[in-house]
Amino acid sequence: MIDTQTLLDLFTDTRNHTETLCKPLEIEDYVVQPAMDVSPPKWHLGHTTWFFEEFILKHHKPNYKLFHEDFAYVFNSYYETLGERVVRSNRGNLSRPGVAKVYDYRHYVTNEIKELLATEISAEIEELIQIGIHHEKQHQELLMTDIKYILGNNPLLPKYSNDFKEHTPQTETQEWLSFTEGVYEIGHNKDTFCYDNELGRHKTYIQDFEISNKLVTNGAFIEFIEAGGYQDFNYWHADGWEWVKEENHAHPMYWHKVNGDWHHYTLQGLKPIDPKAPLCHVSYYEAFAYAQWKGHRLPTEFEWEVAQQRLNWGKRWEWTESAYLPYPGYTKAPGAIGEYNGKFMVNQKVLRGGSVVTPPNHTRPTYRNFFQANLRWQYTGIRLVK
Amino acid sequence: MIDTQTLLDLFTDTRNHTETLCKPLEIEDYVVQPAMDVSPPKWHLGHTTWFFEEFILKHHKPNYKLFHEDFAYVFNSYYETLGERVVRSNRGNLSRPGVAKVYDYRHYVTNEIKELLATEISAEIEELIQIGIHHEKQHQELLMTDIKYILGNNPLLPKYSNDFKEHTPQTETQEWLSFTEGVYEIGHNKDTFCYDNELGRHKTYIQDFEISNKLVTNGAFIEFIEAGGYQDFNYWHADGWEWVKEENHAHPMYWHKVNGDWHHYTLQGLKPIDPKAPLCHVSYYEAFAYAQWKGHRLPTEFEWEVAQQRLNWGKRWEWTESAYLPYPGYTKAPGAIGEYNGKFMVNQKVLRGGSVVTPPNHTRPTYRNFFQANLRWQYTGIRLVK
Amino acid sequence: MIDTQTLLDLFTDTRNHTETLCKPLEIEDYVVQPAMDVSPPKWHLGHTTWFFEEFILKHHKPNYKLFHEDFAYVFNSYYETLGERVVRSNRGNLSRPGVAKVYDYRHYVTNEIKELLATEISAEIEELIQIGIHHEKQHQELLMTDIKYILGNNPLLPKYSNDFKEHTPQTETQEWLSFTEGVYEIGHNKDTFCYDNELGRHKTYIQDFEISNKLVTNGAFIEFIEAGGYQDFNYWHADGWEWVKEENHAHPMYWHKVNGDWHHYTLQGLKPIDPKAPLCHVSYYEAFAYAQWKGHRLPTEFEWEVAQQRLNWGKRWEWTESAYLPYPGYTKAPGAIGEYNGKFMVNQKVLRGGSVVTPPNHTRPTYRNFFQANLRWQYTGIRLVK
Amino acid sequence: MIDTQTLLDLFTDTRNHTETLCKPLEIEDYVVQPAMDVSPPKWHLGHTTWFFEEFILKHHKPNYKLFHEDFAYVFNSYYETLGERVVRSNRGNLSRPGVAKVYDYRHYVTNEIKELLATEISAEIEELIQIGIHHEKQHQELLMTDIKYILGNNPLLPKYSNDFKEHTPQTETQEWLSFTEGVYEIGHNKDTFCYDNELGRHKTYIQDFEISNKLVTNGAFIEFIEAGGYQDFNYWHADGWEWVKEENHAHPMYWHKVNGDWHHYTLQGLKPIDPKAPLCHVSYYEAFAYAQWKGHRLPTEFEWEVAQQRLNWGKRWEWTESAYLPYPGYTKAPGAIGEYNGKFMVNQKVLRGGSVVTPPNHTRPTYRNFFQANLRWQYTGIRLVK
Repeated sequence: MIDTQTLLDLFTDTRNHTETLCKPLEIEDYVVQPAMDVSPPKWHLGHTTWFFEEFILKHHKPNYKLFHEDFAYVFNSYYETLGERVVRSNRGNLSRPGVAKVYDYRHYVTNEIKELLATEISAEIEELIQIGIHHEKQHQELLMTDIKYILGNNPLLPKYSNDFKEHTPQTETQEWLSFTEGVYEIGHNKDTFCYDNELGRHKTYIQDFEISNKLVTNGAFIEFIEAGGYQDFNYWHADGWEWVKEENHAHPMYWHKVNGDWHHYTLQGLKPIDPKAPLCHVSYYEAFAYAQWKGHRLPTEFEWEVAQQRLNWGKRWEWTESAYLPYPGYTKAPGAIGEYNGKFMVNQKVLRGGSVVTPPNHTRPTYRNFFQANLRWQYTGIRLVK
Repeated sequence: MIDTQTLLDLFTDTRNHTETLCKPLEIEDYVVQPAMDVSPPKWHLGHTTWFFEEFILKHHKPNYKLFHEDFAYVFNSYYETLGERVVRSNRGNLSRPGVAKVYDYRHYVTNEIKELLATEISAEIEELIQIGIHHEKQHQELLMTDIKYILGNNPLLPKYSNDFKEHTPQTETQEWLSFTEGVYEIGHNKDTFCYDNELGRHKTYIQDFEISNKLVTNGAFIEFIEAGGYQDFNYWHADGWEWVKEENHAHPMYWHKVNGDWHHYTLQGLKPIDPKAPLCHVSYYEAFAYAQWKGHRLPTEFEWEVAQQRLNWGKRWEWTESAYLPYPGYTKAPGAIGEYNGKFMVNQKVLRGGSVVTPPNHTRPTYRNFFQANLRWQYTGIRLVK
Repeated sequence: MIDTQTLLDLFTDTRNHTETLCKPLEIEDYVVQPAMDVSPPKWHLGHTTWFFEEFILKHHKPNYKLFHEDFAYVFNSYYETLGERVVRSNRGNLSRPGVAKVYDYRHYVTNEIKELLATEISAEIEELIQIGIHHEKQHQELLMTDIKYILGNNPLLPKYSNDFKEHTPQTETQEWLSFTEGVYEIGHNKDTFCYDNELGRHKTYIQDFEISNKLVTNGAFIEFIEAGGYQDFNYWHADGWEWVKEENHAHPMYWHKVNGDWHHYTLQGLKPIDPKAPLCHVSYYEAFAYAQWKGHRLPTEFEWEVAQQRLNWGKRWEWTESAYLPYPGYTKAPGAIGEYNGKFMVNQKVLRGGSVVTPPNHTRPTYRNFFQANLRWQYTGIRLVK
Repeated sequence: MIDTQTLLDLFTDTRNHTETLCKPLEIEDYVVQPAMDVSPPKWHLGHTTWFFEEFILKHHKPNYKLFHEDFAYVFNSYYETLGERVVRSNRGNLSRPGVAKVYDYRHYVTNEIKELLATEISAEIEELIQIGIHHEKQHQELLMTDIKYILGNNPLLPKYSNDFKEHTPQTETQEWLSFTEGVYEIGHNKDTFCYDNELGRHKTYIQDFEISNKLVTNGAFIEFIEAGGYQDFNYWHADGWEWVKEENHAHPMYWHKVNGDWHHYTLQGLKPIDPKAPLCHVSYYEAFAYAQWKGHRLPTEFEWEVAQQRLNWGKRWEWTESAYLPYPGYTKAPGAIGEYNGKFMVNQKVLRGGSVVTPPNHTRPTYRNFFQANLRWQYTGIRLVK
């Protein structure tokens, strides 16, 4: 068990950090939703707050008074247990509550939680607060990727900040790291915080494999583009090929050809692409096609977990070949908390690692991120296996 | 011809009035687009400004410097002649340019036009400025209906202002005004400003008709609802019935039943419906169905124009039975200005009159407003003929 | 009133003619529905039969026994009055009832009507039988256009028949026929059979106009294509331009370029286009755009009716500029028969004339055909006015 | 290697069997496509024939003359390697080639292959013929499920045959069969024919599990329905719940409530449901939700393969929890044959077993069937694990 002061500090830091991330924004940037999977920043601010109100304050703080009756409706994301909500595609249509009001809401709830933490709290509340903190950290990452999408899809291509560096060249020499066939243990052993989908540490049998010490670089991917990779169905899944053709994909997200040279939108504005930096913003379909073209493949999430100690990871989420499925013995928690992970365990792929916008201490070797195969507004990259 | 001082005053007043209308808004309200036909207020502010820049300053003010290279792309509405533009459904996805920047753009262009007006100007420029002013007035009306939509579809139902009264009871006794069969003249005779779609004053033959001195009231329409009007296909066009069923319509836009009583969202917030006030926010389909149920019909736009001198009109746009078609001898002006009206002359219905948000002096007996048969976010009402 | 023997002959001929039209078909051709607006031939066979059963036999023939309980569900087209029905887009999904069964149904109902006609019948029944006959004639035309669509959109481009000639060169010299401004009478005077939408003969005021004695030819339209007419938005309505771009239109329906020369699918198979024959299978949008490009316009339906005596018409439906609207004093008949015309009087354009597949005696100077502006699987052509 | 006579017999039997399955059909039944995933029977007849023509005769029979130039376009399913094809959703729009012509095509190709088999053939050709036979067997199953869909979605609910019995009560007592944790071998060892997706026999680690000896019965599933299973989101994946709500699902496919009792459409017509017979025609979403409600889960495909020797399987395809992914070391065959399986290895679930319409000898313990999670027109059922 964590001591209360540590928990309070963690809580306070997390709440502050979310607001720090929003500092460079103009009011207008908080409001829009240029794609279904992107949420307005003010929605993230409100939703992470509502989470503490709904799961903790409402039930565990005596005489707690809701900040506003209708905010549960506005800021619930997908919890069916907790009643009706604004449909996801509608989040960008709401000008109210305004940004100032949402900050009021944040400060109100932050203070209420602090007051609660000044009292004797049960193990259950402590765990809920921990979940709330991790939930907010998860949204910090989404907040950053959504901000990037909002600015990067604006025709004026405004910068987020001059200081935020997303791309660093990889200097390592390419090597294949070998692993030997056998039974390995996979999953979290619950000694520290983790999500329920990591639990159930269990044996799995892995065949011999070799994994690249480096991520695929922009330069390597440009070779794929120039070899006609986006025009040859042979490298693609049937679904991936349909995605390419229907949406006319021919390069990673945020890439623009300017006067014959590849550039990409970054949080520092439009920049020339560094061929030595790791590739970013590709879908699983693109990751798979690239691997096919190269004659290699993507790792399974188990291979990745076995290999991770020898990898320099954490700057890009890495697509794996694994589908997002329950580990042996997995059971959903009862109630709304149980909606957190389990109900998404179909039609998604696992990503391992972390990214430049993942909050500190918010990832670990057993962490299982997951997205649909076509998505790429996250910082997603490719590592090969043979 | 209008004298320069009058034109300058008209210009200044119009520019100011647009900004006055936006005074009650929060920054966030300027940004969103909750429906395809609704534009964000900041888009209206920018678009009306761009109109002066594009059609006048760029071509007629020596050494004019564009405020921003990319604004033509952002603020063009539908002028194919003038190059690419942000697709309409995408307007609400743009957080930038921010509201402050858009106001800078307005003031820059306003000043430039004022400077131009301080010089000797040609009749052509004068006419273009007049068109620009009327164009902005037209957008003032859309601005208000779009603001109403933005606030009235927000789950918090925020007020626009305590002072803006939209609904007044009609105190007249119901009468049928008779008109006799014969040849009448229709259209504008060009003695003052008008749009090209009103021109070509021409003879038309009209049969005997009687027109109601009053608009249909909320109370009368509630009878239609309570008689099952929305459930009986007999009163509806085939297209109208499909619209009812696919979108589950059962009352006018902005109506809510609260504890058994009809209320509606108004710019002053949610209010009980006044049964004596004229009905508002119905589609042509609803207008037609109501008339069918009542055993009457809607006027043609020619009947309306003939009758208008004896009517007390101007508080609601009145659906007519007429399709929006060219008058005899109509020809589109060449170039972009020619895209103003003519290209919409198919699949739309004519509305006559004006509304509580129509700017002063922006309507006249020959004015032809037009919308698709399913739209109702304008202040649209019903007048019957028999 | 028509005498019974004449009515019987008319009925018998009409029923036989429908079946004659289907002679060249293979069983498989009766079943498919390659587009929403196209119905399977067996559906036409069944629907025209159901019309006699539903409106006449069921109510007016003592002890009439339905051929099959479920056929009303299968063969109702759009009559809301008459209960549920197979949704329109679903007609091509029904393999049963099979073609042989549908013919059994036809013969059963044909005989029952004949039996009824052998008795004393009321004026009401006589009128219903006349409507049934005209209804079937109308479907004969749709049957032919649907057959053409079914075969002409099959990759094998099978012929319907070697004998069916659709296209004849126009040998007349181009002339402009002049008409003088004034009051004209429009509409049917009810001395013979007509539809309710033609009734209400009434005065209308028409301005001077000149109308072409000839229809626009294929050769003239090829000039429009070659002049880039499909690539220049200036000639198109906004809706028309969207139609062109979304569906990539660049020529009339059924046209194919084979080795550099324009061909078109005809009921006799693929043939080179005759530049002197009248253009066919264009939408209203194309008709309008062509007229704009040419600097002329389309006639109103009133101009057409006034001019028709001096025109050689009847081989192509001619798009008019008029929207399909009720004539003065129009009222829908009560009940299902009232659903025949009135409920379509919105969002459609009027066509006048007739076509090579219009059954003999099924058109007249006052006949008002109507379709949406984008449709072109009918034999639709263009006549200009200036 | 198989001897030539055996191969000839297998080929002949398979070709005949396909045609035998179609015997009860009327011509019209061969043509329609009432859902995207359903193909018209004549398309199956032609496609399985085209497979032999395209992959074998065209390349390996000297002087082979194509039956018809355009049939490759009409009967290619999804092979990108082999050029353009009729889009899948368009198959039901083709009345031609007619059924008789398709049978001519079949007989022509059948004879040509027989002629080829009368000569000395290479191992490559032999393997291709084997693949062609297995391909046709696979389509025999789809043919039957598509016929069921075509007839079972017709409002007249016609029978396929009086003799085809789909449903037999399960008489076994419910037992849980136990398996012990450890390393097991999975996959085909290539001693006989199999598909490439079964290859790569490999070790896998399996935890202790108990699997039901019986499939879930109709009666058990009715309990789930009556307990409100389709109304409670808690049992469903997020995607599954959306599927339920958007398409209003409340029971398995083909089920109808008649006078208060559950019936289902079977190939013998509409029948009361036998509560003791195994449940059929459920999606993976329903299978998962049922297991959740019951407090159990679905087996992985590995558990199933380990357990299968002790199971009485083969009458229903059994949904597994496993996503359809490549086995270790899997590589796609080059060329069109390589499009057979590999390109579908994303967004699909594995099913194991076989069904009443699986041709004899067309399944085996290692056979991996796969479908999207929402599909249920196959004979799909549920087996539980705990």
